[in-house]
Amino acid sequence: MKIFKVEKTLVSTNRIAMMEHKPLLVVVEKDGGTPQVAVDPVGCKPGDWVLCVGSSAARDAVGTKGYPSDLTIVGIIDKWEVANHGNTPS
Amino acid sequence: MKIFKVEKTLVSTNRIAMMEHKPLLVVVEKDGGTPQVAVDPVGCKPGDWVLCVGSSAARDAVGTKGYPSDLTIVGIIDKWEVANHGNTPS
Amino acid sequence: MKIFKVEKTLVSTNRIAMMEHKPLLVVVEKDGGTPQVAVDPVGCKPGDWVLCVGSSAARDAVGTKGYPSDLTIVGIIDKWEVANHGNTPS
Amino acid sequence: MKIFKVEKTLVSTNRIAMMEHKPLLVVVEKDGGTPQVAVDPVGCKPGDWVLCVGSSAARDAVGTKGYPSDLTIVGIIDKWEVANHGNTPS
Amino acid sequence: MKIFKVEKTLVSTNRIAMMEHKPLLVVVEKDGGTPQVAVDPVGCKPGDWVLCVGSSAARDAVGTKGYPSDLTIVGIIDKWEVANHGNTPS
Repeated sequence: MKIFKVEKTLVSTNRIAMMEHKPLLVVVEKDGGTPQVAVDPVGCKPGDWVLCVGSSAARDAVGTKGYPSDLTIVGIIDKWEVANHGNTPS
Repeated sequence: MKIFKVEKTLVSTNRIAMMEHKPLLVVVEKDGGTPQVAVDPVGCKPGDWVLCVGSSAARDAVGTKGYPSDLTIVGIIDKWEVANHGNTPS
Repeated sequence: MKIFKVEKTLVSTNRIAMMEHKPLLVVVEKDGGTPQVAVDPVGCKPGDWVLCVGSSAARDAVGTKGYPSDLTIVGIIDKWEVANHGNTPS
Repeated sequence: MKIFKVEKTLVSTNRIAMMEHKPLLVVVEKDGGTPQVAVDPVGCKPGDWVLCVGSSAARDAVGTKGYPSDLTIVGIIDKWEVANHGNTPS
Repeated sequence: MKIFKVEKTLVSTNRIAMMEHKPLLVVVEKDGGTPQVAVDPVGCKPGDWVLCVGSSAARDAVGTKGYPSDLTIVGIIDKWEVANHGNTPS
């Protein structure tokens, strides 16, 4: 699993039906990093450091059978301070 | 999921039968980036910023059982402006 | 899916039985790039620009149930000219 | 499989139910590298060099059907000394 | 599939039962490259250039149902000389 920081909600009105209305969040590995998008079944807010699962496990983690996700938030990290890794603590 | 910009349609006449006639679009993560090819079940046009799913979820997202895709467009982003990420707004 | 240029046939006499005698081609994303190997169910020749699928979809694309591929050619591109991407047209 | 060094335990109180209470460890490929998180069914301690499996195999390796992992520790390496690869021996 | 050079056997006494006693080999894409670990159902020796499959296909290629591998050797390359790719011939 990888560690990301939540930036904001992604708005995509025109999406395939299979995506339903689940919240999609823009996340980055570090400030200024390439943005990715994760499905959020936990309920996160901007600034949270979260744990995301990829690969085929991302589909099961959403909790809806057959949901087409390749990146899903599975937990909020209690405290993340890794200045030595180039990340900024929340 | 990752964010891409649609460039153009890819023409591949000689393809395996399993690929059918679904539209294939050339997409890039940013202008000048390495081109990838995504299946488009949504109906996008060049210049659109889109959300793409990879991994095994890409197959289900096409909506045709067993379709051999590893990158499928699942939504069009309403508005994408991330100059700070090095991407150009649509 | 990613775009590759076919370089040559790979010869591997001592292979697991599951690989059968299907043609394996050395492909590169651009001239001088890291070589990868793709299964070819289409019938390509050196110099062709091809579309390859990875992930679990690569297995189905071969057309033989349970074939252990993680990169399979699914189509030949009619015309590929992307000098601006650093690739050489075929 | 890839080789990682165990750094510490990750604390994530607010996680999806599917993650249960299995130990999650922060691991790095080399000192100062980007931290990733692996599920630990073996019982490792900080400083151990471990073998981790990714992709869909990470789910089976946990030993709990349907566990949403994309990186799971499958073994502790007896002795790892690869100064020539830029890693520090344990 | 990717091309690797076999370096040596990896010793991991404390491993999950699912890994059994199959040989695990340390492989590199080029001399000095980051070491990875592949399951070897073929019978390779140090110095061999081999073809490895990843993704979910790596599991089937081992030949044991449900084996948790994400990188498996599927063949030995007869002759590999690609000085132009930065690799050293065997």
